[in-house]
Amino acid sequence: MKVPIVENVLKFNDEIAAMNRHRFAETNVYVLDLIGAPGSGKTELLVHTLRHFPARIGVIVGDLATTRDAERLMQAGDAVVQINTGKGCHLDANQVRRAMEQIDLDSLDVLFIENVGNLICPVGFDLGQHAVVGMFALTDGDDKAAKHPHLVRTADALILNKMDLAPHVPFDLDLFTADVRHLNADAPLLEVSAGKGALDPWLDWLRQRVGRRVE
Amino acid sequence: MKVPIVENVLKFNDEIAAMNRHRFAETNVYVLDLIGAPGSGKTELLVHTLRHFPARIGVIVGDLATTRDAERLMQAGDAVVQINTGKGCHLDANQVRRAMEQIDLDSLDVLFIENVGNLICPVGFDLGQHAVVGMFALTDGDDKAAKHPHLVRTADALILNKMDLAPHVPFDLDLFTADVRHLNADAPLLEVSAGKGALDPWLDWLRQRVGRRVE
Repeated sequence: MKVPIVENVLKFNDEIAAMNRHRFAETNVYVLDLIGAPGSGKTELLVHTLRHFPARIGVIVGDLATTRDAERLMQAGDAVVQINTGKGCHLDANQVRRAMEQIDLDSLDVLFIENVGNLICPVGFDLGQHAVVGMFALTDGDDKAAKHPHLVRTADALILNKMDLAPHVPFDLDLFTADVRHLNADAPLLEVSAGKGALDPWLDWLRQRVGRRVE
Repeated sequence: MKVPIVENVLKFNDEIAAMNRHRFAETNVYVLDLIGAPGSGKTELLVHTLRHFPARIGVIVGDLATTRDAERLMQAGDAVVQINTGKGCHLDANQVRRAMEQIDLDSLDVLFIENVGNLICPVGFDLGQHAVVGMFALTDGDDKAAKHPHLVRTADALILNKMDLAPHVPFDLDLFTADVRHLNADAPLLEVSAGKGALDPWLDWLRQRVGRRVE
């Protein structure tokens, strides 16, 4: 009895995601789904990206509760919409669709969807994005790629944040990198320190992806 | 169509949880469900607890993939069972029930259930435990209690780990504490540094809870 219902939910999601994708193509906006653990630094990364990346950027941000991320983001950008999911551990395509209606997509080059802080649930829910970015933090330990194979396999790029804290926490970068490569041979592993504004590998990757729009 | 199915799943879970609780009472074992973000330090806390808390302790540990946590725990204790959940973002009572069959509960004073690293999904799934312990890490930011109100409200104790990294990361402890108190007036907030073995507030709380069994 359960499986068909779950399949229906995913089928419905995929249909809305296709509509989102069509709308993103119409408006020529490049869309990234940012997935990472709570506290991995997603909002901080986006605040710096809004400030320093030469493009017109919007953000849809999901959280169970509070508008704290949206408030932080609005200090750096105008086109920010918050979705509160209550107990929901991921965004779905229909939530994104409703949030999109509050943004003038025609005025944007890039749209980030900052997913609910969670390494598990958001994976596999198509939102209509062009790229999935998976985010880990050095402070969360070197076993997190191996423990979250679905995210690592799905991601088009992987960010390892909080590199500046390397002197203070145990982390085997070779082990982490080997785990990533075992699961995903192609996605670049971008080492950054969002708290220090040291984001060049990320900004370079983003420039390659969306360069045509902003040159 | 969806809601009754979800209710059935929860009703089935609660029935199994009641059976688990009955079994825990029969065998006089005190059971704690440890819920925290990936990388918050759950396994490290339990390794130290196994080594330094004067009781016979078992652990059931959940993860999407890998047996790395179980391997770490087995270096410190004998009664360790791993559950791999695949894409499942929490443990349910039936998974715990099957894992329990691999442990001699009569030989234990305390059983920890280290849930899947996730601040959202495990909340509300009764496993038959006596207490829920919620775990946060200083490195994940001071907004995480407010963003996860269901966990904070549900918890019997809250751990704030990685206090030793306070000099290196921004964290407003007064704000975090106020958020916790706003949501849960009763649960103690236990400040620890599992990586340094500085766990006295946690071990003291645990002693109060399970003291009768181990004195």
